[in-house]
Amino acid sequence: MRSSSTDIGGSPPPPSARLLDKYKSSVAPFWRSGRMNPRVKRVYSNLVEEVDAIVLINGTEPNLDLSFFYMTEAESGLFEECVTILWPDGSMELISSKLEETSAGAVEAKIKVFENRTERDRMLKNALKGVKRLGINGTGISYKAFKEIRRIIPSIHEIDVCKSIEKARLVKDEKEIGLIREACRIASEVAEEIPDFLEVGMTETEATAEISYRMQRKGANSPSFDPNASFGENSAEPHHTPGTRRLKPGDLALFDFGAKYKRYCSDITRTFPSGRVTKEVKEMYATVLESQRVGIESIRAGVNGKDVDAAARKVIDRSEFKGKLIHSLGHGLGLSVHDGGRMAPEYDFLLEENYVLTVEPGIYLPGIGGIRIEDNVRVTADGCEVLTSASREMRRI
Amino acid sequence: MRSSSTDIGGSPPPPSARLLDKYKSSVAPFWRSGRMNPRVKRVYSNLVEEVDAIVLINGTEPNLDLSFFYMTEAESGLFEECVTILWPDGSMELISSKLEETSAGAVEAKIKVFENRTERDRMLKNALKGVKRLGINGTGISYKAFKEIRRIIPSIHEIDVCKSIEKARLVKDEKEIGLIREACRIASEVAEEIPDFLEVGMTETEATAEISYRMQRKGANSPSFDPNASFGENSAEPHHTPGTRRLKPGDLALFDFGAKYKRYCSDITRTFPSGRVTKEVKEMYATVLESQRVGIESIRAGVNGKDVDAAARKVIDRSEFKGKLIHSLGHGLGLSVHDGGRMAPEYDFLLEENYVLTVEPGIYLPGIGGIRIEDNVRVTADGCEVLTSASREMRRI
Repeated sequence: MRSSSTDIGGSPPPPSARLLDKYKSSVAPFWRSGRMNPRVKRVYSNLVEEVDAIVLINGTEPNLDLSFFYMTEAESGLFEECVTILWPDGSMELISSKLEETSAGAVEAKIKVFENRTERDRMLKNALKGVKRLGINGTGISYKAFKEIRRIIPSIHEIDVCKSIEKARLVKDEKEIGLIREACRIASEVAEEIPDFLEVGMTETEATAEISYRMQRKGANSPSFDPNASFGENSAEPHHTPGTRRLKPGDLALFDFGAKYKRYCSDITRTFPSGRVTKEVKEMYATVLESQRVGIESIRAGVNGKDVDAAARKVIDRSEFKGKLIHSLGHGLGLSVHDGGRMAPEYDFLLEENYVLTVEPGIYLPGIGGIRIEDNVRVTADGCEVLTSASREMRRI
Repeated sequence: MRSSSTDIGGSPPPPSARLLDKYKSSVAPFWRSGRMNPRVKRVYSNLVEEVDAIVLINGTEPNLDLSFFYMTEAESGLFEECVTILWPDGSMELISSKLEETSAGAVEAKIKVFENRTERDRMLKNALKGVKRLGINGTGISYKAFKEIRRIIPSIHEIDVCKSIEKARLVKDEKEIGLIREACRIASEVAEEIPDFLEVGMTETEATAEISYRMQRKGANSPSFDPNASFGENSAEPHHTPGTRRLKPGDLALFDFGAKYKRYCSDITRTFPSGRVTKEVKEMYATVLESQRVGIESIRAGVNGKDVDAAARKVIDRSEFKGKLIHSLGHGLGLSVHDGGRMAPEYDFLLEENYVLTVEPGIYLPGIGGIRIEDNVRVTADGCEVLTSASREMRRI
């Protein structure tokens, strides 16, 4: 079993002509819209190793491959154990379960519907007849699902094309940007409302319930992840799980949340001091804000993400809070909250136009609390557009 | 590369004695509680092929391995790209990222903390020194994560022990049942409240926002999955994604949702007719209810799930709605909404005491609507205990 983990870059290989002809003649009558999928094309153009086809397979929730939804653009449906096949000419097949038949109907692809796993496996085997070099999405497919393909078609040689898919997903197209923009609008509006409903005595989980509710009332399909509310010492842990801790005067109250709109995510963080604000908190806040400003100003197409991280981190490391930014500065955002790529020390990540990123410096003081400010930006040729509009000025509860 | 997909049953193999001794002498001083983990023991007792160690690795959200959380019992934290190693003597190691250090502190294991991937890989390599036969969780580990282990330790021979882990997770212990009970209480209370807040003109997403909010106010950490509200013709699609469809008189309004409480799930469905109730809807409802009653009465330890499915399905297939139950009768429930196992035609699934299952027959009429009634039960020696308490009688909106 061989695989390539360096399949980014270079010019696209010629598709296997024989196979393509065979495919065109067999599929053409079923192709409903005549439209080739530009997202499929983009994945193929990123490959460095030729493949005859690419397969995406979902497991059962939560182990779904978001790239499946990137390709199908299916707005509804879970599609557990369903399969998409991407062909080098940009066309697509969907092998869908009966359960998802209605949702599948909205997908522009040749569609086959199975009633059980045996039927699915037979459809998959037929569809991949003649395929020798099969692209798989290594981060989205489970070990077990891959072994099942291998069992159905023992002769297949797999090539992990996850980097090519990730690279395609990093550059957002117009439709995606529109959806992310809407997700950002919803989260920003709710972020603005936090000081209005937050009060001393409220628990972390009560606050997150309020945040989720308000986002959904404003049109979110769901939160993009379990919202995080961290009060007092809990805010020093970046991935704290909200609990029964009640807000007390003197606490820092950190909120990290986002909206999911038609599968696309936003991800925003705001921190509010409660009660009397100490000089130290004021300085923490100002330092984080300045770090974020410098980060955002460093972003433009062609810049390396690690240099953006370094510029923002330097602001913190030159202050009295040196070393207290204990995570990377930001990450890609899209169908997933961590959509590939990150701006982090020693991580090469060349920014391109229409990447969507979080910029989220923070300072964490164990036992005391943390401050993080996070916004979402779209990379442009000469800078970036901030998509989240909530005020970043310090507001006291 | 070989793997076993039939690792259930039989008596546990003797652990590799040499390795165990080596491990005990090296780890004993670090073992903090002296407590061996009975869940680890249970997984090993299910193996049919001997392994020297079992590794669980998380990807990035949403591709986390819930079995990681089954083993660690970590109530907070995401633990992206973190690793647990389970040893044959029942002890456990946790290789945690710096980001999760506080959450990791609550885990009873030997803990190591890494700052970056290189460090993690080194820790993993050291920890697995001498391991030849490595158990992996095939459904929870991605192809890519497995390949990374293979890269770090090329000589390793992997054995997929996912069935042994699934089997261990199916039988809930007292702590798990307590958490599920609480998740069921929350969902049941909200189900009872639906007719109080639902009104004609409300959209599906507004209704789901209300449901999530109420669950979280009652103590849920989050919904156990994106709540489903399906109005009218949308209710004929079991996995409909809620949208802007407004409730109209004459609609069926189907709600499928659950609470997550300390990572454990409930999963309940109730359907309410709005406006005038036709004779057909009354019959649909009565048929589904009777099907569920028969299903629940068929459940006890020792029975095959497919026979429970058959008994409940027969009620529908003998009615005028023959063939309109288009999914399986139920599934396991726990850390995941689909926690392993299902009661479905032609699927052997021997029920044991303390399995927790959904029982959810439905009738779906495309273009018209669907009715589903779903409850959660705990299997007992002579029957089952219904954990969800919401009324199943038809209530009109």
